[in-house]
Amino acid sequence: MSADVAGAPKPLQPAVSPQAPEPPQVAEFPQAPKSLQGPKSPQAAQSAEALDALNRELPGRVVTDPAVLELLRVDRSGVVADGLPLALVEAESVADVQAVCRIASAFGVPVVTRGAGTGLAGGGAGGAGEIVLSTLRMNRILEVSAANQLAVVQPGILNGALNEELEGHGFWWAPDPASKHISTVGGNIATNAGGLLCAKYGVTREAVLGLKVVLIDGSLIDVGHRTVKGVTGLDLCALMVGSEGTLGVIVECTLKLRPLVPGVVPTIGAYFADVGSAARASAAVTASGIQPAIMELMDAGVLRAVSAYTGVDLASHGDSYLLIQTDGANAVAEAEGIVDVLRANGGTVGMTTDPQSALTLVDVRRQAYAAKEALGKVLVEDVSVPRDKLPAMFAKIDEVAARTGTTIVTVAHAGDGNLHPTFIYDRAEPVVPQAVWDAADELFTYAISIGGTLTGEHGVGLLKRQWLGEELGERQYELQRGIKRLFDPQGLLNPGKVFAK
Amino acid sequence: MSADVAGAPKPLQPAVSPQAPEPPQVAEFPQAPKSLQGPKSPQAAQSAEALDALNRELPGRVVTDPAVLELLRVDRSGVVADGLPLALVEAESVADVQAVCRIASAFGVPVVTRGAGTGLAGGGAGGAGEIVLSTLRMNRILEVSAANQLAVVQPGILNGALNEELEGHGFWWAPDPASKHISTVGGNIATNAGGLLCAKYGVTREAVLGLKVVLIDGSLIDVGHRTVKGVTGLDLCALMVGSEGTLGVIVECTLKLRPLVPGVVPTIGAYFADVGSAARASAAVTASGIQPAIMELMDAGVLRAVSAYTGVDLASHGDSYLLIQTDGANAVAEAEGIVDVLRANGGTVGMTTDPQSALTLVDVRRQAYAAKEALGKVLVEDVSVPRDKLPAMFAKIDEVAARTGTTIVTVAHAGDGNLHPTFIYDRAEPVVPQAVWDAADELFTYAISIGGTLTGEHGVGLLKRQWLGEELGERQYELQRGIKRLFDPQGLLNPGKVFAK
Repeated sequence: MSADVAGAPKPLQPAVSPQAPEPPQVAEFPQAPKSLQGPKSPQAAQSAEALDALNRELPGRVVTDPAVLELLRVDRSGVVADGLPLALVEAESVADVQAVCRIASAFGVPVVTRGAGTGLAGGGAGGAGEIVLSTLRMNRILEVSAANQLAVVQPGILNGALNEELEGHGFWWAPDPASKHISTVGGNIATNAGGLLCAKYGVTREAVLGLKVVLIDGSLIDVGHRTVKGVTGLDLCALMVGSEGTLGVIVECTLKLRPLVPGVVPTIGAYFADVGSAARASAAVTASGIQPAIMELMDAGVLRAVSAYTGVDLASHGDSYLLIQTDGANAVAEAEGIVDVLRANGGTVGMTTDPQSALTLVDVRRQAYAAKEALGKVLVEDVSVPRDKLPAMFAKIDEVAARTGTTIVTVAHAGDGNLHPTFIYDRAEPVVPQAVWDAADELFTYAISIGGTLTGEHGVGLLKRQWLGEELGERQYELQRGIKRLFDPQGLLNPGKVFAK
Repeated sequence: MSADVAGAPKPLQPAVSPQAPEPPQVAEFPQAPKSLQGPKSPQAAQSAEALDALNRELPGRVVTDPAVLELLRVDRSGVVADGLPLALVEAESVADVQAVCRIASAFGVPVVTRGAGTGLAGGGAGGAGEIVLSTLRMNRILEVSAANQLAVVQPGILNGALNEELEGHGFWWAPDPASKHISTVGGNIATNAGGLLCAKYGVTREAVLGLKVVLIDGSLIDVGHRTVKGVTGLDLCALMVGSEGTLGVIVECTLKLRPLVPGVVPTIGAYFADVGSAARASAAVTASGIQPAIMELMDAGVLRAVSAYTGVDLASHGDSYLLIQTDGANAVAEAEGIVDVLRANGGTVGMTTDPQSALTLVDVRRQAYAAKEALGKVLVEDVSVPRDKLPAMFAKIDEVAARTGTTIVTVAHAGDGNLHPTFIYDRAEPVVPQAVWDAADELFTYAISIGGTLTGEHGVGLLKRQWLGEELGERQYELQRGIKRLFDPQGLLNPGKVFAK
């Protein structure tokens, strides 16, 4: 079975996502060079010529309205790129993307690929003189094949919109970032997005079979396979996933689908006296070998923020909360096993199999980001640690917050060890205060020291590039930069992102 | 929990695996350059100096016995590399591997990394003047962590031996090549091995969290993560998986484990009147959305060969056979659903939940390779196609066999679309006959034309390098070669493998 279920192209909604409560915060990141454009800042004359060429080759798809361009300097991270982009190009086809890349190469103008602008590391922020290449109009589903359990889609389709369509075919696409209703499939792939379901259903890389990619010289390559297996040479498809727009532009995605999971989804809520107890309980669930679909941990600060924001009272019953769901044929027995583990670890546990109550609880969790933003300006961190190190990481967060006087509230994907310690600071601050960066630096360094990583799912972008070398080591950092140079010898694709130098 | 369960290093058993029924067949591959060493054939003087250095730095670990070296010219593919390797080095530590790489770089001598020599594409075959670097003595389990659902192992441990040990911890490692009892974890990773379980449990790439890799200059890098999620820069861990020894030497592997799957495993055997009917039935199972653990298809030729080899009669009941297992909490209901699909597609179906009968049937399937070898000399192909194209691929195989007069028997991992059309030819032939290669070429070209690939799980090695560019396209081929050059500027790591030029 194969069905083209494309809708009409939708108008571009740059930078500010449909559900954004307010325009993104403006903040600068520390110790970074003033220019975010990389070494090859285009000459004004070249820029003008490039703009002429874009207008000539892509009439009606080039936007230079400063009010629009201003919105493209930011994503949801709070980082703001310097200066105004040269233009926004709203690509409608592979050929459009190829034209943009050829023009960029010819005139030495940088290209920042951008989906819905929901990134949390600044990877899609357009800087001075750069072409922002939007894939939002390339939002069609080209094929759904039940027989091969795959879909072929354009990169600009929203994850949530895709999954709504797939449901009618009896399938879903597993990547599940909290932003799924407002983030694109292309963006999910470019950042190797994580989310709530990764311990059970994998990260985005494992849900991508193949990609069509436009290189900066305008050529089109086909990486990966339409088959379950395929080992012809080096795995450039996996290399593209998570490359944050530094190697090429993803223009078509062959996605691995899963049949819908039938049956009841039990939802467990468990309160604990403190965050350390909740973290130990979540580690005990993992160690029990029972695999939850979702296991989310919220500390006291997040409970209060989410309760205030959503009106659902989570804060009055305890100082920490675990939200757990199981799914599949054995879901209820698994949930009962988890309840036992939680009670043995001091939790006050409730369970429901009512779909509406369950949905409410999960949606409450998905509002955590917006709830934190309502408290002040935010810097959301994204460390990930081995799951048995969750209690240690939470203890470190508490210790750093107390010692430095910073406000940190934390939600964690406890099922996979990914924490989002979120710094809240005063709206009057023009940029992220140095004290916040210093405290964040301590968290990064500690996470790496216990076998973790400085970013589990948000990516490096602008926000974390200064720490990348520390985690990778010099030799690997050089190899990664070498691959970047190989794909993009002029350094035009998302310059200054991921790699600082 | 963390346990060191290392055994004492075992003596090396080069080239001929413990269960090999006879020494590997000798055959040459067509249209390939005479020398397999790549352009940098070392001078004799350099070779002598390199050998001196190896003996000096690695006393007791360097073997130059010509009888041993002769065995290293082959793997299980039938391809024989030209000339005798310079030496075998039996590395016992990361430092040993680093020493070999430093010496190789200093004297410009090629290095072929080799595990158990069970490869089916010639990737581990040592050619004239090359150092064969064996990781078989690096066979320890360094850690099993239930809390993090991971194991850290050295590359030389056999997949089967690892899984025996993991069973006691309540876990397993999912990669499941038919060779699992005789192939190493390092080799599984270097080839991104597939196997019987991939549609449900993924390929090897998805079961590898992190790797320690020695580069050709002797430096050690750490790629991937110990965490479920991690997106720091480009995914060099995924890039290493399946790189067939061309980028570096894998010296430590952090593996993602799965809890053992509890419960009954129903096994279904279904006979069909012809291979096309069986292929259509398997495609219908996939399209039904029920996910088997194993779904194997054997044609009439394989049925006869396996029956003769194992004494288990599969051949007298039909001209094609599907072997299917389900597992997990819903296994029996899933199996019953599959039985219905098979009957609706013309199958004569039996089902058992008796573990011993089931094991016998699966083991019978695992003997298919040896059974085919008993018929004559073999050339095993490895095309993979979208699952709805299985009937078309089988029809093409029949057509090509009939028209060219070649004998082809085929077993397929029908659950994932991976077929092994196996050419049987006369033992008196010194090399693979040109008619066989011509027929194989037709199958490769056809598989690619219907959205498939020329190798699903065996890799490119020497055997398929001449077709690689055709599948990848010129631009991607150049990028892949560029990455190879970046990692290995002198072209010393497995030269001539994967990339012909």
